[in-house]
Amino acid sequence: MAHIQDLLQEISLLSSTSATLGWDQETYSPTRSVVHRAKQLAYLQGKIHKLQTSDEFCEGLASLDPANQRELTHRYERATKLPQELVERDSETSSLAKAAWSEAREKNEFQTFAPHLAKLLEIAREKTDHWGFEDEPYDALLCEYERGAKTREIAALFESIDTELAEIAAAAVEKSSVIPADFLHGPAPIEAQQTLNREIAESLGFDFAQGRIDTTAHPFCTTLGPADVRLTTRYENNDFSSSLFGVMHETGHGLYEQGLPASHFHLPSGQAVSLGVHESQSRLWENHVGRSRPFWEKWYPRAQELFDHLSEISLDEFLPAVNRAAYSPVRVEADEATYDLHILLRFKLERALLAGALEVADVPAAWNDEFEKLFGFRPTTDSEGCLQDIHWSMGGLGYFATYSLGNINSAQLFEAAMKDESTSSAFIKGDFLPLLGWMQKNIHKHGSNLFPQDLMEQATGSKTDPKPYLQHLRSRFTNELG
Amino acid sequence: MAHIQDLLQEISLLSSTSATLGWDQETYSPTRSVVHRAKQLAYLQGKIHKLQTSDEFCEGLASLDPANQRELTHRYERATKLPQELVERDSETSSLAKAAWSEAREKNEFQTFAPHLAKLLEIAREKTDHWGFEDEPYDALLCEYERGAKTREIAALFESIDTELAEIAAAAVEKSSVIPADFLHGPAPIEAQQTLNREIAESLGFDFAQGRIDTTAHPFCTTLGPADVRLTTRYENNDFSSSLFGVMHETGHGLYEQGLPASHFHLPSGQAVSLGVHESQSRLWENHVGRSRPFWEKWYPRAQELFDHLSEISLDEFLPAVNRAAYSPVRVEADEATYDLHILLRFKLERALLAGALEVADVPAAWNDEFEKLFGFRPTTDSEGCLQDIHWSMGGLGYFATYSLGNINSAQLFEAAMKDESTSSAFIKGDFLPLLGWMQKNIHKHGSNLFPQDLMEQATGSKTDPKPYLQHLRSRFTNELG
Repeated sequence: MAHIQDLLQEISLLSSTSATLGWDQETYSPTRSVVHRAKQLAYLQGKIHKLQTSDEFCEGLASLDPANQRELTHRYERATKLPQELVERDSETSSLAKAAWSEAREKNEFQTFAPHLAKLLEIAREKTDHWGFEDEPYDALLCEYERGAKTREIAALFESIDTELAEIAAAAVEKSSVIPADFLHGPAPIEAQQTLNREIAESLGFDFAQGRIDTTAHPFCTTLGPADVRLTTRYENNDFSSSLFGVMHETGHGLYEQGLPASHFHLPSGQAVSLGVHESQSRLWENHVGRSRPFWEKWYPRAQELFDHLSEISLDEFLPAVNRAAYSPVRVEADEATYDLHILLRFKLERALLAGALEVADVPAAWNDEFEKLFGFRPTTDSEGCLQDIHWSMGGLGYFATYSLGNINSAQLFEAAMKDESTSSAFIKGDFLPLLGWMQKNIHKHGSNLFPQDLMEQATGSKTDPKPYLQHLRSRFTNELG
Repeated sequence: MAHIQDLLQEISLLSSTSATLGWDQETYSPTRSVVHRAKQLAYLQGKIHKLQTSDEFCEGLASLDPANQRELTHRYERATKLPQELVERDSETSSLAKAAWSEAREKNEFQTFAPHLAKLLEIAREKTDHWGFEDEPYDALLCEYERGAKTREIAALFESIDTELAEIAAAAVEKSSVIPADFLHGPAPIEAQQTLNREIAESLGFDFAQGRIDTTAHPFCTTLGPADVRLTTRYENNDFSSSLFGVMHETGHGLYEQGLPASHFHLPSGQAVSLGVHESQSRLWENHVGRSRPFWEKWYPRAQELFDHLSEISLDEFLPAVNRAAYSPVRVEADEATYDLHILLRFKLERALLAGALEVADVPAAWNDEFEKLFGFRPTTDSEGCLQDIHWSMGGLGYFATYSLGNINSAQLFEAAMKDESTSSAFIKGDFLPLLGWMQKNIHKHGSNLFPQDLMEQATGSKTDPKPYLQHLRSRFTNELG
């Protein structure tokens, strides 16, 4: 009989192999390779599912420490509820859907993606039926990304702040209208962007002997092994800040992955606890560090060296410009002040899709209507509307809520870390490694030993609490911009 | 019971997954990822071996058509003779050896690679013991790459031409000494090289919707799926012709792979027949096409557009320069006239290593001694000597002989194709697609249905025959250069 540790090692080899194929598909695969790649991924997912639902797996659980036993029992129970056929269909469908989404987005043709989305939604519904749920189907998906979270609690959290978020956004956008930012745009050769991005990622602690940065349509971070974390970004020819903040965001994810205990790579104790905590790390480095005065005091001279058009712009002009707020149709380009509005939109539509209250064919119109309510204008194309995100094409329904959860967590964790004297005094001097050390000690090294909310409580003294986030937004968008 | 077709599909998915991990390791993997990657590859090779040696596999063989049955029975018999442990050790050892080789080559430190080479040699010897052989251990390895070939036949073939090869090389080098070629060197921005390489590969018939070109230390071609062929090359800043001929060489391999019947991807009938035939395709496009007058009549104006330093150089000056011969320590940079001398050296050393007549520690000295006999000078570093090739680090012992076999086959196939009136008249006009069509019809589409020598005979009227090759070399290096 296979020992549970051997089974877990085998699952880990298969999962990381699958991640490598997925990374290749996003970065370098030729267009016509997608059909075979989908078969490979479905095969690997099927194998993983088989191992994860085997009797040996179940019998071995008792020999594990309590935290790993708890998490792996949860995974076993969820996995055994899904038929093998559904797992393989899910994998193959999403591989093909990703390629279709990419084409649809490029051509601005929702109908190219619609049949794929319909299949993915059908699969998601089948899964929620198999898994069961307390209140609504969304619960069964959410718990894949955020252990212990309930949809109604997330909804209540969002409802408790949505009015204030909208007010802050509106105020920030209005204030920003008089802040000059045109000077951010200027010739930005990709090599120079790559140089700056790499220097910054490295200085924040990202280890390039265990990772790299490539170019993709939709930026992401993926882990291919205990010493192999891949980030991606995309480049604007005319705005170096776009790829830089993207890279700082993905670097935040990557630092979390590189901070997990490598020897537990095959165990939950060596794996990230949830997407809401993962996103807290990316937003921390992107926003709390990357848009702060100490960061730019340190890095602005280097940016000026690399990008001539900044040479006449002072730091005091530059800093408000990178903290400028504006309503944008595109989530990944949204500033801090308006970002969560994008999430509220997606959370609402996803719940409606899963509840059967919204049909796939009606998604573009519903998206645009809802968008207009939140932002006051309509996206001009579906590529800038309902086709902008890769997530649905990857079968990632029930996932978006964790972005706002991450924003909220990031402010709470940052506030807690800044209570540490040596961390905050280093931060002010532009030394961010103590902040990384704090995150490693309080978040990264714990893997999935605790539930996300218990980890937040252990690290900050309370469960997810929106107060520090609202305070941060108000402070940044009413004081710093003024 | 699993059907043999399902087993073959599964093996094909695992093999192509393994190839993808291997490609990634050569192209983009961060340095420290190698340990985990080695485990993944060993695991996949172990799985493949298990399937290929299963009772179901053996029992299913009878249901296949004769050609596939013959080849898969051969593979089954060879696979069952190897213990699972040896297969996994082989894979993991060669993964780690590749990284060590790369480091050793960079640092010019043979001792960094030596313990890995010793392990690989030991594994190779163990394999030959398990497989058994008629005359000498080399036979058992050679037949992995060249079905039906015997070491003594290859040795006899080489002995029948080695004197004449050395004479042609010496004459070509002497004649070349008065041919100016310095003008080939000049600023060659990588983007411009990539543009030309891609345009040429595409015009020869390489389909970029089913393939791509990346950069590696050692150029290669690998197939990751029925519609996914990856080529690699490396760039000299100062000589566009180096990457171009490299790309034409790999394009030759890639065209063969893209010409195989995709629906037979999981069967020998959809797989290349041997390395000696594979290499005939790469050398055909690199040398018979790429160094011909019709090719440069078509492409020289474009090269002049991209590389300013060629603008004052006429085609009549340029053409002898790309056909210039010189003794070089490095095989992959060797011209046609001296190339086979490099192979004679490696063939001799490999046989001695396998026969136990040469120790790993003595390889650098033996290499340099033998090199001096053939070329009249000694390599100045091991990086330009025994560390130059990747093959041993991949466990590829018994492999080099197929390069010269490929050279010989290429001339024989080219001569046969040129007997076709429409192919040769198109060729003269710079239209090489009919030549590709001839190769597709006479070589590519047959996969491994025939033994390599029977395929050569069917395509050209005789088994491998060195006459057309010697005639080609004499003609090119005594007439064209004169």
